Amino acid sequence: MNAVTFLGTGEMGSALAAATLSAGYRTTVWNRTPGRCEPLRAGGADVAATVVDAVGAADVVVVCLLDHASVHDTLDPVAPVLAGRHVVNLTTTTPDGARELARWAAGAGIVYLDGGIMATPEMIGTAAATVFYSGARETFDAHRHLIELWGTAEYFGPDAGIASLYDLALLAAMYMMFAGFFHGAAMVAGAGVGATEFAERAVPWLQALAPSVAGYATVIDGGDYSRPGQQSLLFSDLTDIVDASRAQGISSELIDAVQGLIRRQIDAGHGDHGFARVIESIRKSEEAAA
Amino acid sequence: MNAVTFLGTGEMGSALAAATLSAGYRTTVWNRTPGRCEPLRAGGADVAATVVDAVGAADVVVVCLLDHASVHDTLDPVAPVLAGRHVVNLTTTTPDGARELARWAAGAGIVYLDGGIMATPEMIGTAAATVFYSGARETFDAHRHLIELWGTAEYFGPDAGIASLYDLALLAAMYMMFAGFFHGAAMVAGAGVGATEFAERAVPWLQALAPSVAGYATVIDGGDYSRPGQQSLLFSDLTDIVDASRAQGISSELIDAVQGLIRRQIDAGHGDHGFARVIESIRKSEEAAA
Repeated sequence: MNAVTFLGTGEMGSALAAATLSAGYRTTVWNRTPGRCEPLRAGGADVAATVVDAVGAADVVVVCLLDHASVHDTLDPVAPVLAGRHVVNLTTTTPDGARELARWAAGAGIVYLDGGIMATPEMIGTAAATVFYSGARETFDAHRHLIELWGTAEYFGPDAGIASLYDLALLAAMYMMFAGFFHGAAMVAGAGVGATEFAERAVPWLQALAPSVAGYATVIDGGDYSRPGQQSLLFSDLTDIVDASRAQGISSELIDAVQGLIRRQIDAGHGDHGFARVIESIRKSEEAAA
Repeated sequence: MNAVTFLGTGEMGSALAAATLSAGYRTTVWNRTPGRCEPLRAGGADVAATVVDAVGAADVVVVCLLDHASVHDTLDPVAPVLAGRHVVNLTTTTPDGARELARWAAGAGIVYLDGGIMATPEMIGTAAATVFYSGARETFDAHRHLIELWGTAEYFGPDAGIASLYDLALLAAMYMMFAGFFHGAAMVAGAGVGATEFAERAVPWLQALAPSVAGYATVIDGGDYSRPGQQSLLFSDLTDIVDASRAQGISSELIDAVQGLIRRQIDAGHGDHGFARVIESIRKSEEAAA
């Protein structure tokens, strides 16, 4: 029978281990706070007393800890035991953090696959979950049955940092959308409109508008911001939204940030170019823009 | 036969007039640059040579001009002719701008309805378009058949500024979502991923995540950011996204703005409260926050 070890049984680690247990894998779990393993023990998991015991119990070790530092704290002492085994690291790290771990693993003879989970714990094991992977192709291929238990698995290439980069890029877009919702809700609150009422309009509005980013993407990839049929940067000036926000007595910081990127392109003489040109304000590093 | 006048035949004004013409209304149009009226003349519209002629041709005058100042420039000289008529102003203005126009209209004996169009010109006349109205209820009721030619019509109350406030609040959320897409696309561009490929993942991702704002709204309206089952502010810290953006050499301004709002709540001791508490950072004016 296939054996898998999980290091870290917080909410996400527990969801991954539970989906694996349900599929009949021999599942060993370890957590710094052992009490967190009890629901999994009740479901049939072996609870390891030490990291060494846990790591020794399977050829595949799935890591889902707090952060990059806790991965090193946990794995460094057992590197000799991990040698020759596969590590699938699903801890949220930066791309550079994932690359550093991949180098460390290579130096210790460990096969390293990095993953970024595009799902909440409740979504694990359902069609709604996707997990991005990059790093060791051999781990992705040899243990595909295992990792597809958690959600749709996508492999992005041997650079261990790409899955994390993609993950963080989508999370950035998500947090910006959420922040925009909060800003809009704060604007209408002054007129006595509740956040729930605003959400009833904002959700279908955002869902209907989301596909228009594909049009912007075509312009960006084409590289011609002057092609006809685009909403111009001048027309996209957000002064009305900034003014209305301030008149409501709320912070305009979020809109100021977007407006700053728009104005930088207008001030550079591109006011008649399409709105998608805003990405050029982001592409330039702060030093280059300064 | 019902008669309607349109002042301003840019892209949006032309779309509104065209939908009205198609429904069999006697339609008079005026534009500062008369050539812009020619397609409508070919469709059966009367083209007025002057604003006075245009305004005198109908009891309902629909205004769709560049901005608040151009509305005054155009209407002020013909106020005596407008007296007793209905003005439906669909020009994008701030809530305070709409209120000022409503006061001006009341002083001149003009019935004033303000509108905010939640659609692009191509969407006018289809089920995808919605127009928000506030101000004179009598205009909304008496001319409902007309205004429903353009899209779903919603009335928000007698305060002429509310439709604009709602409009700008939804636009704020939309621009933040678009800016978030651009940020994510700029992040993955460094790894050779095109904006179009990123859009293919970002669109379903944003559409799937949008409904979760309803959960945040419930928490906001309930006022208890400590209720269980929420993603905490500490867990929502965006340091990884900021670091990864900077490591890619792109601007982190947008994410810095969101992170600033999150950190303000954490620094005030609310790190274990739910992410929705971010709205409290926006609700406070800059002076209050300083």
